[in-house]
Amino acid sequence: MTTSWLDIDPSSDFSLANIPFGVITREIAQSPHVGVAIGTYVLDLQLLWGLHPEKFQAVHEALTTEIFSSPTLNAFAELGRPAHRAVRAWLQDLLSIDTSCPELLRDNEEARKLALIPQRNVRMQLPMAIGDYTDFYAGYHHAHAVGVMFRGVQNALQPNYTHLPVGYHGRASSMVVSGTPIQRPVGQILLDPAGPTTAASRRLDIELELGCFIAKPNALGTSVNVADAEKEAIFGYVLLNDWSARDIQTWEYVPLGPFNGKNFATTISPWVVLADALEPFRTTGVENKTPLQDYLKEERRENVFDIHLEVDLTTPEGDTTTISRTSSKHLMWSFPQMIAHHTLGGCPLRTGDLLGSGTISGPGGAKGGECGSLLEITEGGKKEVLLYGMDARTFLKDGDTVTLRGSCGSAGAKVGFGECRGRVYTARR
Amino acid sequence: MTTSWLDIDPSSDFSLANIPFGVITREIAQSPHVGVAIGTYVLDLQLLWGLHPEKFQAVHEALTTEIFSSPTLNAFAELGRPAHRAVRAWLQDLLSIDTSCPELLRDNEEARKLALIPQRNVRMQLPMAIGDYTDFYAGYHHAHAVGVMFRGVQNALQPNYTHLPVGYHGRASSMVVSGTPIQRPVGQILLDPAGPTTAASRRLDIELELGCFIAKPNALGTSVNVADAEKEAIFGYVLLNDWSARDIQTWEYVPLGPFNGKNFATTISPWVVLADALEPFRTTGVENKTPLQDYLKEERRENVFDIHLEVDLTTPEGDTTTISRTSSKHLMWSFPQMIAHHTLGGCPLRTGDLLGSGTISGPGGAKGGECGSLLEITEGGKKEVLLYGMDARTFLKDGDTVTLRGSCGSAGAKVGFGECRGRVYTARR
Repeated sequence: MTTSWLDIDPSSDFSLANIPFGVITREIAQSPHVGVAIGTYVLDLQLLWGLHPEKFQAVHEALTTEIFSSPTLNAFAELGRPAHRAVRAWLQDLLSIDTSCPELLRDNEEARKLALIPQRNVRMQLPMAIGDYTDFYAGYHHAHAVGVMFRGVQNALQPNYTHLPVGYHGRASSMVVSGTPIQRPVGQILLDPAGPTTAASRRLDIELELGCFIAKPNALGTSVNVADAEKEAIFGYVLLNDWSARDIQTWEYVPLGPFNGKNFATTISPWVVLADALEPFRTTGVENKTPLQDYLKEERRENVFDIHLEVDLTTPEGDTTTISRTSSKHLMWSFPQMIAHHTLGGCPLRTGDLLGSGTISGPGGAKGGECGSLLEITEGGKKEVLLYGMDARTFLKDGDTVTLRGSCGSAGAKVGFGECRGRVYTARR
Repeated sequence: MTTSWLDIDPSSDFSLANIPFGVITREIAQSPHVGVAIGTYVLDLQLLWGLHPEKFQAVHEALTTEIFSSPTLNAFAELGRPAHRAVRAWLQDLLSIDTSCPELLRDNEEARKLALIPQRNVRMQLPMAIGDYTDFYAGYHHAHAVGVMFRGVQNALQPNYTHLPVGYHGRASSMVVSGTPIQRPVGQILLDPAGPTTAASRRLDIELELGCFIAKPNALGTSVNVADAEKEAIFGYVLLNDWSARDIQTWEYVPLGPFNGKNFATTISPWVVLADALEPFRTTGVENKTPLQDYLKEERRENVFDIHLEVDLTTPEGDTTTISRTSSKHLMWSFPQMIAHHTLGGCPLRTGDLLGSGTISGPGGAKGGECGSLLEITEGGKKEVLLYGMDARTFLKDGDTVTLRGSCGSAGAKVGFGECRGRVYTARR
């Protein structure tokens, strides 16, 4: 394990093994641009480029000034995985204790002062310009638990569930970065069988998901095969909280799917963990005994990642309870399978498009504390979840803060996402 | 009725009463930019601006060089309806026989040669950069007919249908302009109850819709009230063909709605008819006897437009049959109501976002030749529709061309959309 000349806490999500990319605004600077997280610092890549353009250009021939001074990661993502790999490896070298170019940062106090900024001094932006957002439903235990709740154990899963990764189109315009306030939505709710009421949602929920950003686009009328999807299509990953107003959703969603129950906000974590950084944490997903259509068959069985995921609920009084502990391995479909299915009919994916995994829950369900939604934890709002501070919840209260966390790897070499956080504010009058 | 100094056929969709905006590429020019349609011509606004910037700037203070040399109409749309109104009125004056500035075009042969181009010499582009696309289900007779087909007459409409404009998020990346080839999609289809097959769709259909582009955006967490939606939110309208693979859709759409059955392509007509141009054609929509929630109540009952709509099917042999004649008045929900509902929970609409009305069919249904989809015309593929040339269809054949047309008003003062056309090509192997 290589260590850094920077002092990095072994518990940090942002070890030398990670190097996630994000878009930062510095207090002193005018415009958002690209940086990477390392320990408690951000390395400002626009600034580093300005100091040593020739060094960067030697890393990969497609790199330009614009790529790191851009307000999104789209231009960098579009370069493709070999470029991401080369830049990440170079930054790992630059930050490692035995770096091959100590004069750039390690032994250059002035450069360090300019380019390394404490994370608390930057504001994180939405990392990508998101063209389209698609949300899948690949979390098997979630789909099963919710199915049992609505249709009983015999019909828990719809007949198509094990044949294709079920998904639907989400709303890109309401995608927000971690920390953005979440306003409780107003909507139509069926409180009385005689007819709906327009009111603030009483059943505001979260959904713990993994998000996946597309790097390589495909043209209209072409499809991406599952092997190429794994090798080329994916830029990186974020945590995603698909806030859901269950009462609005229940009344509106038949027959065309969720709409206002979801489109008021979706929060993502700000640092994009590159596809390469997660490679060492591959594992097998939920077994699917159904024979797959050819276009969904993958060569290796280790098609998902074992990312340890947690959900914290912090009350308005400031007491925090971890209400879920699970893993992203509890998916029945991999992102390459989702991409192969999404493009099967010729639908174009563009650089910066975002795919959500669907809610991730573990096999232990509510009893095991492994649920990615309050709907499951409270069995449809019937059982309260107890919180520290003598408090309890069925669904979210105004003033509650929900924080998703996720990481893999051991102390000193962790690959994590940081926080995906949102606080609930009172509904508009 | 004012006439133009240009020779315009009375049957033209693009009379002086219209002045729709589009994005053109001229054979001689490098980059797409803005023009308006008039008769069989395009008036090139980038070029006109170049000749007389001071005249344009006098029309509205917010106009800049960039607005008409832009490859989309977004910058123009963002200026708001007063600006659209002023520019349209000025262009109507410029093109009218008794124009107040004859020296600019009417009596200036050189300027006419430069700025007026036959439509056949330009290539039309997608008019807007579309952030998000939402498809509603507001065509009452379509929703009812399809409901009868799937659930019987007693349960034809879902309980929410008359309480809110049902809608779902569509796919923006596969939105294409009229004339773009449509490749028959491959997808999972349930031909055998034992399990699905991956094959080219056998039930490729159309959906006749009206599309509505957003001008004025709303911020996350705010909603647009229905009166403001009517006055300010809408830029203009296009025809929209929501191509649908019924067999793919049937297998995939439970429980989260349509996905690959729709996202392979959606075609829109290239000319955006401004909201003001349709004002004279207001009428009452389908009566809704359900008491509405306050946020959906409109002051005037004339909340939809009576646009005469037609669907032509042209066989590979070149024979054309008009398979549907209906009107956009057969909507139960208006676009302002759709906007008020869409934003009720705080979902942001952005300039250039597109709303589809849902399939429009008349009360006469299949017998009256008023259906906006083959699904209805052929009663789910059970009855063939007879075509000229001794041919017949249940669903579309490779080589078929579908053309939507729409217009209002009388000869010499028509406000129409031109064509929304697409030809079906063989599925990818």
